[in-house]
Amino acid sequence: MDLEHLKKILESLRNGRITVETAMDRLKGLPFEDIDFAKIDSHRSIRTGFSEVIYCPGKTLDQIRKIVERSVQNRHNILATRAEREIFETIREVTDDCEYHETARIVVINPRPLPPVGNIAVVCAGTADIPVGEEAAVTAEILGNRVRRFYDVGVAGLHRLFSVREELFKARVAVVVAGMEGALASVIGGLVSCPVIGVPTSVGYGASFGGLAAMLTMLNSCASGVSVVNIDNGFGAGYQASLINRMGPPDPGA
Amino acid sequence: MDLEHLKKILESLRNGRITVETAMDRLKGLPFEDIDFAKIDSHRSIRTGFSEVIYCPGKTLDQIRKIVERSVQNRHNILATRAEREIFETIREVTDDCEYHETARIVVINPRPLPPVGNIAVVCAGTADIPVGEEAAVTAEILGNRVRRFYDVGVAGLHRLFSVREELFKARVAVVVAGMEGALASVIGGLVSCPVIGVPTSVGYGASFGGLAAMLTMLNSCASGVSVVNIDNGFGAGYQASLINRMGPPDPGA
Amino acid sequence: MDLEHLKKILESLRNGRITVETAMDRLKGLPFEDIDFAKIDSHRSIRTGFSEVIYCPGKTLDQIRKIVERSVQNRHNILATRAEREIFETIREVTDDCEYHETARIVVINPRPLPPVGNIAVVCAGTADIPVGEEAAVTAEILGNRVRRFYDVGVAGLHRLFSVREELFKARVAVVVAGMEGALASVIGGLVSCPVIGVPTSVGYGASFGGLAAMLTMLNSCASGVSVVNIDNGFGAGYQASLINRMGPPDPGA
Amino acid sequence: MDLEHLKKILESLRNGRITVETAMDRLKGLPFEDIDFAKIDSHRSIRTGFSEVIYCPGKTLDQIRKIVERSVQNRHNILATRAEREIFETIREVTDDCEYHETARIVVINPRPLPPVGNIAVVCAGTADIPVGEEAAVTAEILGNRVRRFYDVGVAGLHRLFSVREELFKARVAVVVAGMEGALASVIGGLVSCPVIGVPTSVGYGASFGGLAAMLTMLNSCASGVSVVNIDNGFGAGYQASLINRMGPPDPGA
Amino acid sequence: MDLEHLKKILESLRNGRITVETAMDRLKGLPFEDIDFAKIDSHRSIRTGFSEVIYCPGKTLDQIRKIVERSVQNRHNILATRAEREIFETIREVTDDCEYHETARIVVINPRPLPPVGNIAVVCAGTADIPVGEEAAVTAEILGNRVRRFYDVGVAGLHRLFSVREELFKARVAVVVAGMEGALASVIGGLVSCPVIGVPTSVGYGASFGGLAAMLTMLNSCASGVSVVNIDNGFGAGYQASLINRMGPPDPGA
Amino acid sequence: MDLEHLKKILESLRNGRITVETAMDRLKGLPFEDIDFAKIDSHRSIRTGFSEVIYCPGKTLDQIRKIVERSVQNRHNILATRAEREIFETIREVTDDCEYHETARIVVINPRPLPPVGNIAVVCAGTADIPVGEEAAVTAEILGNRVRRFYDVGVAGLHRLFSVREELFKARVAVVVAGMEGALASVIGGLVSCPVIGVPTSVGYGASFGGLAAMLTMLNSCASGVSVVNIDNGFGAGYQASLINRMGPPDPGA
Amino acid sequence: MDLEHLKKILESLRNGRITVETAMDRLKGLPFEDIDFAKIDSHRSIRTGFSEVIYCPGKTLDQIRKIVERSVQNRHNILATRAEREIFETIREVTDDCEYHETARIVVINPRPLPPVGNIAVVCAGTADIPVGEEAAVTAEILGNRVRRFYDVGVAGLHRLFSVREELFKARVAVVVAGMEGALASVIGGLVSCPVIGVPTSVGYGASFGGLAAMLTMLNSCASGVSVVNIDNGFGAGYQASLINRMGPPDPGA
Amino acid sequence: MDLEHLKKILESLRNGRITVETAMDRLKGLPFEDIDFAKIDSHRSIRTGFSEVIYCPGKTLDQIRKIVERSVQNRHNILATRAEREIFETIREVTDDCEYHETARIVVINPRPLPPVGNIAVVCAGTADIPVGEEAAVTAEILGNRVRRFYDVGVAGLHRLFSVREELFKARVAVVVAGMEGALASVIGGLVSCPVIGVPTSVGYGASFGGLAAMLTMLNSCASGVSVVNIDNGFGAGYQASLINRMGPPDPGA
Repeated sequence: MDLEHLKKILESLRNGRITVETAMDRLKGLPFEDIDFAKIDSHRSIRTGFSEVIYCPGKTLDQIRKIVERSVQNRHNILATRAEREIFETIREVTDDCEYHETARIVVINPRPLPPVGNIAVVCAGTADIPVGEEAAVTAEILGNRVRRFYDVGVAGLHRLFSVREELFKARVAVVVAGMEGALASVIGGLVSCPVIGVPTSVGYGASFGGLAAMLTMLNSCASGVSVVNIDNGFGAGYQASLINRMGPPDPGA
Repeated sequence: MDLEHLKKILESLRNGRITVETAMDRLKGLPFEDIDFAKIDSHRSIRTGFSEVIYCPGKTLDQIRKIVERSVQNRHNILATRAEREIFETIREVTDDCEYHETARIVVINPRPLPPVGNIAVVCAGTADIPVGEEAAVTAEILGNRVRRFYDVGVAGLHRLFSVREELFKARVAVVVAGMEGALASVIGGLVSCPVIGVPTSVGYGASFGGLAAMLTMLNSCASGVSVVNIDNGFGAGYQASLINRMGPPDPGA
Repeated sequence: MDLEHLKKILESLRNGRITVETAMDRLKGLPFEDIDFAKIDSHRSIRTGFSEVIYCPGKTLDQIRKIVERSVQNRHNILATRAEREIFETIREVTDDCEYHETARIVVINPRPLPPVGNIAVVCAGTADIPVGEEAAVTAEILGNRVRRFYDVGVAGLHRLFSVREELFKARVAVVVAGMEGALASVIGGLVSCPVIGVPTSVGYGASFGGLAAMLTMLNSCASGVSVVNIDNGFGAGYQASLINRMGPPDPGA
Repeated sequence: MDLEHLKKILESLRNGRITVETAMDRLKGLPFEDIDFAKIDSHRSIRTGFSEVIYCPGKTLDQIRKIVERSVQNRHNILATRAEREIFETIREVTDDCEYHETARIVVINPRPLPPVGNIAVVCAGTADIPVGEEAAVTAEILGNRVRRFYDVGVAGLHRLFSVREELFKARVAVVVAGMEGALASVIGGLVSCPVIGVPTSVGYGASFGGLAAMLTMLNSCASGVSVVNIDNGFGAGYQASLINRMGPPDPGA
Repeated sequence: MDLEHLKKILESLRNGRITVETAMDRLKGLPFEDIDFAKIDSHRSIRTGFSEVIYCPGKTLDQIRKIVERSVQNRHNILATRAEREIFETIREVTDDCEYHETARIVVINPRPLPPVGNIAVVCAGTADIPVGEEAAVTAEILGNRVRRFYDVGVAGLHRLFSVREELFKARVAVVVAGMEGALASVIGGLVSCPVIGVPTSVGYGASFGGLAAMLTMLNSCASGVSVVNIDNGFGAGYQASLINRMGPPDPGA
Repeated sequence: MDLEHLKKILESLRNGRITVETAMDRLKGLPFEDIDFAKIDSHRSIRTGFSEVIYCPGKTLDQIRKIVERSVQNRHNILATRAEREIFETIREVTDDCEYHETARIVVINPRPLPPVGNIAVVCAGTADIPVGEEAAVTAEILGNRVRRFYDVGVAGLHRLFSVREELFKARVAVVVAGMEGALASVIGGLVSCPVIGVPTSVGYGASFGGLAAMLTMLNSCASGVSVVNIDNGFGAGYQASLINRMGPPDPGA
Repeated sequence: MDLEHLKKILESLRNGRITVETAMDRLKGLPFEDIDFAKIDSHRSIRTGFSEVIYCPGKTLDQIRKIVERSVQNRHNILATRAEREIFETIREVTDDCEYHETARIVVINPRPLPPVGNIAVVCAGTADIPVGEEAAVTAEILGNRVRRFYDVGVAGLHRLFSVREELFKARVAVVVAGMEGALASVIGGLVSCPVIGVPTSVGYGASFGGLAAMLTMLNSCASGVSVVNIDNGFGAGYQASLINRMGPPDPGA
Repeated sequence: MDLEHLKKILESLRNGRITVETAMDRLKGLPFEDIDFAKIDSHRSIRTGFSEVIYCPGKTLDQIRKIVERSVQNRHNILATRAEREIFETIREVTDDCEYHETARIVVINPRPLPPVGNIAVVCAGTADIPVGEEAAVTAEILGNRVRRFYDVGVAGLHRLFSVREELFKARVAVVVAGMEGALASVIGGLVSCPVIGVPTSVGYGASFGGLAAMLTMLNSCASGVSVVNIDNGFGAGYQASLINRMGPPDPGA
């Protein structure tokens, strides 16, 4: 351990076993930042409940295999996101201790369920938005959050949204997933009093320009309390929702 | 009058005062299209209740004065749109028979109120959208429509919108004016069963990109029955709303 | 039925079978909004002639099958839009009572032809725009409108457009479908006196940017009376055209 | 009070003073949603500590005066945002009980300081970003949060950022304000373990395209835990930061 | 023939066989515009040397077959553009009298070579631009123009361009085809004194955005005398070049 | 004069006054390209009738004065474009022999009217497009072309365009100037058989995005024979129109 | 000095004046990174010849005054960029030892001319690009580089560029400044063999979109060896050119 | 050889075998520029160590084969970039003397390793950026540079970057390859004192818009000394890095 290492250098200096110059040289060589950042990282790991996330697109199967082999020991709840079935199968060759959330396209390696706390609402406008909603929901669940799903409650039929209103009011943070015009984030932002994280999706056609329209809608939300992540970034929304939800007391959010 | 002119040529031929060749030459010289299109234009004029609209930006005061001088005789309810006060004063130098709707930035020349029929709802999301809403409302009123205004009912506080819901249900057509994220058009589109005309406005900042965000939102509306006009185009929305509203029976819409 | 349910609660109270407190509790539990919105929805259903539309992209075959199974009873003229043949075949496994409009990519479930009223013109600029035009035309027909198609009348050869001019004048509403530069909407908007709904299409290449050019053209139309729906959104245009056309008297539009 | 009103109707029915039909008619007329939404609003007000925000751009001085006159009684900590000095002076004509935060361009009407809780870090990349940072910081302070400011710590000189690192680690939520390339949000997102709210600013020139570049940078952040609000939207960031910060225990964040 | 028809109506009137009213009715029914526009079209046909162009994308093989069947009689040099080999084979099933220019992706139906006149230079920056260059060159050749090709003379090696400079000076009009940054149009525009038609191509990657970069480059050309057609629109450039080149004297351009 | 200089070197060599080596050295030092390009330039000058154009924006009054002083001798018909009145007055301080076309914002220095040849049509859609139209028209006139102006003939009232149709058919080249949706270029491109140069203007608002919409419209024109210059670039269009028009015989175009 | 400080702590420990624990606490408190980064900064300062740059836009006069007061002692050649005259006058109130380069809008505080080394070419396409060119040139000169300016050599008249070709070949690095279509960077990139830094400028109109067109042109350059900085970023180009030029031997570049 | 040719003409003149006029005619016909530019090209070749680069996309296998056949003799280190395996196999049919760098997608024809000089750092943010990084690294190596690779050091975990900091300080030029938000270029630009060349990559999704976000980030870098090449343009970055690195002394950069 690095702080130990630092202590040893100083003790050697104190005991006259090394000179001041030697001490300075060794201090210069010490990865102070590494100590430091490692500390941050463990802090992060303790708080959020997992150490590593593997974003799969652009990585070869071989690269993913190597990363998993390196990560798999002594670590739990490692997420591989945007993982097509083929990737799941590659990972399973490395370790049997993994599970695949197909709709969410997430593989969890060495899954060790954490007790769910608080209350995160994951709300989807339409059926086609569900894969992104699931990415957010599964991410949050792995990170130890209680998650409630509200799917197919888009603004074209507000009565569907209103029928779940009371449930929405109980959430500590709401993840709102919507494509096309993305108006649902504003409407929910105007209803609830908790933070809202908008996830624009690439669902739509024509002037949706691959999710740009929904993204701009959410960024311009006239309702206060709405912030936005990248198009289709269910993971990012689930992750931040977890950070927020776990800030509250252990469990009054049921 | 051109149809008279045509008749005279044919009568001259019939009476032997001109030959077939002469008749053909004269017919060739006749602005048939003009007759034809004039007919369209009078048809349009009869139906919509006015003959001409002067879009002011880019025209010099002098050009506007000349257009008004040319138009002012025998025509009623001529609109000058996007007219700053200076333009109103220029027009008033030509004729006293005009009135200025300052918020709507519309001058009506030779105003002759038409009896209002039907029921058009003009709905504005925020206070800053009112000038565009007024442009739509005044345009529709001049064209002989009953107009009801619902202002400041944006989605950030849905209860304001819901308190006027019953009134909205009575409209034959709804003009929805909204800037920022423009979600109001989708929400109203999901509530009412009449056609909705969305008017994105340039109200907003940053990622609203001068109204682009609201425009894309409305074009991507997941609610059926929403169509869209140009950013800030209150006139166009009021005009089309009039075409639609006046299609119905004279007055069951009260 | 919910109104029945409400009545029963009130009668139980009236008859002394339940207390005021119980009645209040039950009322609180009642989906008032649902009643309310259901009312809207039936209102909408009565007026437009159908209850549900299934937008297919982004839905799995399995999801579509389930939605159809749930919807198929007691409802007529359910539309499934953007339905590739594979989807049609999936639906036909659920019910034989359906028909496929291949060019329009629309499946009608439990089709019950409504008597066509009024007069909607669907105008296409080029051959490649026909699928979108058919989506509009078939939608409007299912909704009980008389539809006339005018295809391949783009502005590059105005004589083609002029040869159908008299027919166009008879329409109560015109749906104008055009890709590339989309100028046809403006030209028709300048000819007719009825409302024009522009449908930009993604037909084109290079600087058409997937329909963006045509969409901007139509939104900037210098002709009054033109509003616009999303790129390739034939359904939306047909739907709104139906709302407008059916506002007129039952059938003087022949 | 509406619940009282409901009770009275039911009691009249129970007592036989009205019929079931009359009861149903009266229930139909009740503004259920209003009751409901008012409840939401007071809930929100109680939680966040203020009832209303006046976004000034696009409102005339006269409109602002009227809104303030209507709002000023019995309410505290009303914010008027994006308020130029002229607006402050207009408000001061209505009430003396107001204060002006000039850099933040915020007027607080009837200010009643709330005891600050928790710990929000507001971090600015450059000097020109400070007005937006102040909008966030002042908003959060009025809402009862302890705020620490870290200004001029952009990525071009990481040592400035590192010198305040330990302080940053104490925050419960970080608001990161940056223009130009907006990289600071990612860098801080990679350092801290609390939620980060990125505020892109319009500071920059050329390819910053009015803040678009910084906005895209933040939305694409490779660091987890970053969400984004509109360009220059300091208020929105401060508001959401307050929602998050106040979720934690009353005060271990000092 | 319509003029005959008109004459007959007038003669009937002259001879008293019909009344003035009948004549007016019949005149109203006459397709005057058709006569008129047909005249324009033959005028165009005579001048440019061909009657019809079939733009293939978006048309089914069946539609193309029908159009060809309808067009093939009595007409020469009909072009089918953007025609993949499959289309060529479909056309050959209708008529053997056709030829395929594979690189240009053009089928010429009923080819009847016209004597080449004048001098059009088709200049390509890179090898990948050649298909678009060929589309322009073949189009112009079919239309009866002498065409000289200058390929692979991009600005990265100006000496290649300079070695053909004298030849370029002889052209009456230059078509410049370039992707990536499209600078060649400006450079040639600064060299020659004839009109230059720039054709941006979609060749490139990344910030070329499908030809947008080259298109903007050419539109902003600081050299006078450059105009631009759509991205990859070799046909349009070849067509306009033909209009210009054929305006000159029959053949001093050799 | 450079050709003289070259001749002298060769004569010196011929006469034995210098060696081959000296000749080679001197030739290497000679600005061959300059000779060469000067030749091009005089060629250009002879053909187009003027030697220099001063594009004013971004130049200080002092810079413009110096350029004019340098250019004014021995040259005629020098154009200063985009010249506000202040610039005209600066130029008049250098020379009295200049004239100002105020609407076109063009100063002509040492004007020497050339006999007008051929026939260029300059067509404007709306009143606000006239300044750009005038820039094109005046440029073409100074360059020695006969110009006919057709203003205010936009597509919203096609009868206005049709009433000048016969005149349009006489043009050798048409410059079409239009803002908003810019559809006029396509419509005229479909009518006439001469080359059409489209000039999109920045006239419009909202989704015209400073002329982008009109520019895309014209680039996507479905009518063959249309090419496009930069937004508001009346000069460029007039210049290219001159190159094309003057290619024809001296004067059959009246 | 921090290394001194570190040494003292270690010596105190060595000498038994402090304990290991005290040493560890003090080390923890030491701004190690600051030492480290300060080293970088002095390294940078030594190499490039100046310590600080003040980018003025968005800073108040008061902020600039304070920054200058803080920076002015013991440092030379401090640059204030984008400095309008008003800013220069504010700075001169703090210190007389400053000079103003008006066209470049640069103030140099405590100027101490460095001996110019190497050879940087700054090339401008047009007169309006000169202010950006001067920003690059003055920046490079202050940093101790020999700079040669080549102005008004745009591609519309290549002979102007060719006449300075030999001089260009001598440069170690070329900064190419161009607006409008920005083709000059590619052309020079194809001529010279040294690195080229392109600076797109916002000079232009219409489809230049504030420099976007030139920026895309340069990024897509088909000539190898061209890299690009932000629109109008003369400073950035001059700075990087200095880094490159000073990498070579002291002075063979004359 | 052309200089020989020139000499012969001059000698003939000197010897009286030809007249001055004949000499002038022949000189006019001489490809002076070719001589000239060939000189430039050999200069370039000598300096950079290779003569030709074949950019493969858009070229047919047949075209590539022909180019290779033409180039292969007497030239070394010819690069074919963006070469899929199929292209490598085509080239190997022409010559066995070639090698394939698969990740970099580069074929080197007639490879003749040059002794590596200096020190170029190629830094990649993420695993998915490695192919672009390899394109830069292999290009630079072929051109005779010493290259050090630093992969997977993105800003989301700054400690990874800091652990290689000392190595980075030794580079003469750094190529920074990053997708998503591209912040790494700014961070490294703030650390090192050598020139930084940013290569945005198309790695990312949603609002990365194919690399646009990273490109804008890098262009807006607040760190001085950063310039940018096209998205995914590893070759261009490696090429320019070589130009810069080889400017320094032969080898102090180890």
